[in-house]
Amino acid sequence: MRVSDIGEFGLIKRLAEMLPCKGDPVVVGIGDDVAVLKPSSKYFLATCDIQVEGIHFYRERISPKQLGRKVVAINLSDIAAMGGIPLYILVSLGLPEDTEVKYVDSLYEGIHEEASRFSVAIVGGNLSRSIGGLIIDIFLIGEVEPENLVLRSRARPGDRVLVTGQLGASAAGLHLIQNPGLEIPKSLAEKVKKAHFKPTPRIPEGRVIALSKIATSMIDLSDGLASDLSRICEASRVGAMIQAEHLPISEAAIAVAELIGKAPLDLALYGGEDYELLFTAPPNKADALALKVYKETGTSVASIGEITPNVDERKVVYKDGRVAPLGAMGWNHFRMGCIYSSQ
Amino acid sequence: MRVSDIGEFGLIKRLAEMLPCKGDPVVVGIGDDVAVLKPSSKYFLATCDIQVEGIHFYRERISPKQLGRKVVAINLSDIAAMGGIPLYILVSLGLPEDTEVKYVDSLYEGIHEEASRFSVAIVGGNLSRSIGGLIIDIFLIGEVEPENLVLRSRARPGDRVLVTGQLGASAAGLHLIQNPGLEIPKSLAEKVKKAHFKPTPRIPEGRVIALSKIATSMIDLSDGLASDLSRICEASRVGAMIQAEHLPISEAAIAVAELIGKAPLDLALYGGEDYELLFTAPPNKADALALKVYKETGTSVASIGEITPNVDERKVVYKDGRVAPLGAMGWNHFRMGCIYSSQ
Repeated sequence: MRVSDIGEFGLIKRLAEMLPCKGDPVVVGIGDDVAVLKPSSKYFLATCDIQVEGIHFYRERISPKQLGRKVVAINLSDIAAMGGIPLYILVSLGLPEDTEVKYVDSLYEGIHEEASRFSVAIVGGNLSRSIGGLIIDIFLIGEVEPENLVLRSRARPGDRVLVTGQLGASAAGLHLIQNPGLEIPKSLAEKVKKAHFKPTPRIPEGRVIALSKIATSMIDLSDGLASDLSRICEASRVGAMIQAEHLPISEAAIAVAELIGKAPLDLALYGGEDYELLFTAPPNKADALALKVYKETGTSVASIGEITPNVDERKVVYKDGRVAPLGAMGWNHFRMGCIYSSQ
Repeated sequence: MRVSDIGEFGLIKRLAEMLPCKGDPVVVGIGDDVAVLKPSSKYFLATCDIQVEGIHFYRERISPKQLGRKVVAINLSDIAAMGGIPLYILVSLGLPEDTEVKYVDSLYEGIHEEASRFSVAIVGGNLSRSIGGLIIDIFLIGEVEPENLVLRSRARPGDRVLVTGQLGASAAGLHLIQNPGLEIPKSLAEKVKKAHFKPTPRIPEGRVIALSKIATSMIDLSDGLASDLSRICEASRVGAMIQAEHLPISEAAIAVAELIGKAPLDLALYGGEDYELLFTAPPNKADALALKVYKETGTSVASIGEITPNVDERKVVYKDGRVAPLGAMGWNHFRMGCIYSSQ
């Protein structure tokens, strides 16, 4: 059965039934002109992220359920980077006419599964035909207590630069997905592909960091550490120096990098899509914060460098003392594409 | 200069400068991971609408400024249908690589212009490359006092069916746009094309209707009166009977319909994109409400029919007493397309 067989309204009804979302704060979910939500005394957070077939994903390389999960996860990651709590999503879909209804069902299953993990309700959306391919745009609304909001703009010289989890596996996974002929041990390949297909939004970690009131800035790693760190520097009008040897590069990423002839460091700095949290904290409190995050969430935090006063400075220091400029490479639509992408 | 020349971040900076949106309720607009908004004690309203090139519009037939204005207007119209006040928008754009930066500037000018008319701040968004064509998805947040919220679901048998403004001109305009060879007097053609390109979201009218606390249901006319009335009936579990002779069909639409050999009534019932408000009110209060809307906003309101108890009933009564079923034709992605569209 194709979407053209049941039509827009048939599809909306089907999805609304799949997604019961009435609850106390949701006054009206799917089924009226707009969603109606009860207010809170906190700040509202709003973000969106559009994913286009052929640009962000290839339909033959990712299952609809994985895709659904991932589009939600990358939006959740943005809420995590503010120290926020995710609440509601709206889903805009552009579907080629011949899309199987089963495909849309699985896509929504993934969306629903990832949203449910964080008690996020799907309260609305919009369906359209599309000519060029599948389009998924997620709008996510969250909240944060004003006193716990963490922006990008308050990093100060001397602050330590910290990062959750591990880096580089997602980029290594993407490389394998784009080059299916490569001979890589299966367990290794699956590990890095999973990092790419199923990122973990760091919502609990973001909350611990925010509630500590120690962090001075925070961003999530979507475009690559070098690029995202640069955004903190720009917003805070500071520079940064990263110690290469302290970067928590995923062991699987290192192994894959060796097998495919890439520098693991490049995967970690420029690879993108790690969806870890990059944040800064005063030097005398940074270790305590890292420990606190680990204790409360089980996620490790590495101290990888320092904020410097020079606004234009972005440097990486190697183990042997060599210092190199940190390029701003990474995902940039229109100009560069992703350096690990074939586009 | 093309978007590929300045890249995603260059484009974001450019747009952020065009759109100063810091104000008291906007804590953080464009430039962090998400937008941060101050709460209110009202209900939050959230809606989105995706517009795809080749499906909803053809780039050669609508100027970028008109397009920008229209995508905002049709979202505003959904907030109007709840009796709400629009507050913030986020804009997701998918842009073909060779899009001129000037085109994006004009598109944003239109978005900004229409948003500004209703004091709506552009607080965020997302840019992506696109393969199939231009994609614009608008996410609009508004608010309404809980006691003034008007849903689709509370129409009762005996209620009068009311509609603001005039019907059919937008569909007539679309027909002329899609058939540029037709010989139609210029002033007439411009009038109906304007109705199509530059719809007026009925925000003030929606507020008057909501604040009156008289209306029992409301929806905006996007898919065509027959289809949208049917949604009120479904949500309220009622039927409806429309008097053809009372439909406020635009004079320009009637004239164009004659020239192109279409029934004006079909334009009014099935044409879509009028973005007027269709609402219901108890019979003893309907006239007073219609007059109130006219007095306070200058927009006429017509009483066009009645809500009936039979859930499956959708009828139109002609002047000569003939009764016919009201088809649920109108815009339906995937299955029917719009009856006035060439798709």
